[in-house]
Amino acid sequence: MNEKQKEMTLIIFSNDMDKAIAAFILATGAASSGMKVNMFFTFWGLSLLRKKNYSRKGKTLIERVFGSMLPEGPDGTRLSKMNFFGAGTKMMKSIMRKKKIFQLNELMDMAVSLETKIVACTTSMEMMGIKKEELIDNIEVGGVVTYLGSARESAINLFI
Amino acid sequence: MNEKQKEMTLIIFSNDMDKAIAAFILATGAASSGMKVNMFFTFWGLSLLRKKNYSRKGKTLIERVFGSMLPEGPDGTRLSKMNFFGAGTKMMKSIMRKKKIFQLNELMDMAVSLETKIVACTTSMEMMGIKKEELIDNIEVGGVVTYLGSARESAINLFI
Amino acid sequence: MNEKQKEMTLIIFSNDMDKAIAAFILATGAASSGMKVNMFFTFWGLSLLRKKNYSRKGKTLIERVFGSMLPEGPDGTRLSKMNFFGAGTKMMKSIMRKKKIFQLNELMDMAVSLETKIVACTTSMEMMGIKKEELIDNIEVGGVVTYLGSARESAINLFI
Repeated sequence: MNEKQKEMTLIIFSNDMDKAIAAFILATGAASSGMKVNMFFTFWGLSLLRKKNYSRKGKTLIERVFGSMLPEGPDGTRLSKMNFFGAGTKMMKSIMRKKKIFQLNELMDMAVSLETKIVACTTSMEMMGIKKEELIDNIEVGGVVTYLGSARESAINLFI
Repeated sequence: MNEKQKEMTLIIFSNDMDKAIAAFILATGAASSGMKVNMFFTFWGLSLLRKKNYSRKGKTLIERVFGSMLPEGPDGTRLSKMNFFGAGTKMMKSIMRKKKIFQLNELMDMAVSLETKIVACTTSMEMMGIKKEELIDNIEVGGVVTYLGSARESAINLFI
Repeated sequence: MNEKQKEMTLIIFSNDMDKAIAAFILATGAASSGMKVNMFFTFWGLSLLRKKNYSRKGKTLIERVFGSMLPEGPDGTRLSKMNFFGAGTKMMKSIMRKKKIFQLNELMDMAVSLETKIVACTTSMEMMGIKKEELIDNIEVGGVVTYLGSARESAINLFI
């Protein structure tokens, strides 16, 4: 690998469980093989980084409504297709457990321990009224300029 | 930045308001920081470039049906999630106005004034029976070969 | 084109007809112009590679349920929007026939004859209980390491 080939930057726009699993399989796979990995969480994807049961104090009504409907971290996510009011998602999780395939929350923990750089998009945080304290620890915040800086150095760029 | 790092090429496949906003934030951010930006609008994404209330004369019935159901430019777009028959989209627009975040139509105007190259996909135009006159001014039309020419020169390629 | 510019690698995550058509137009266009093309089919996208009416013997109940609900190859796919219980998809297919635009199954055949490398994702196969015999011939199977190897060498990487 030359220098340029050593980096991968992913934009995580979606909060669908299936897409998030794909993203973190790519991220952990790349980090394991020695690549530097950057993940930018934007729009719906931002909710993957939320802590559970964070207080809603000081939020506007609209922010509370949005907040209550978006997943709080990986556990609240659902399949993008064949969800069937939660039954499809449960079925998929049980299959993954039986076949010993990593679940989303495990993949996220692995990504963090492999030193994946996780960045929360500032514009999305503002749009959805989400503060840094509501998000998991050990992440950075940044905007489009931060993203472009990483992406320009990366051999692999994806929008997920 | 070396030569190769100076270019970004986006395929805009979706006409969801949220994805279009993400695309134009990336495009205007990159163009502002001196990058050459190319955006290829294909399939549903093509409808982001439609003029409002363009005459349907000379169209087949099927083309009219498709035409009447697709958004005419940025104003007709909706959120990909939590739309709730329009209420979620309205709420998001009002939040963006209050927080002084640019709306989609403003981002599109900025992209044009920053000399982003906007290309409408010819195959999609044919498929949906959309003529060049129905699309906004100052854009180009092109096919997959045009796309590949730009993408091969770009440091950042995304499918949105 | 220098060496690096000669390769394109696509992740096909979706099984929506419209996205699959876009992917194969890109793939056949790139292969026709002399590029090496790699396509990785993962998650829902895997069902694009399924043979029709493959026996369900030896499958668990859950695998059969999933199997019966996923498309078997290109013919079972639907539009991601405006499907209207199948009517929109039919309409789009008939438009494409009339305007002599290639259908998805034709594009797939073209991609194969242009020597596109088609890879089925092993993790997805395990998750969905799909065996190699159930998939079309002349494809490879591989995981994230195989993907990263191709993607790092590619000028164009997309997640579709």
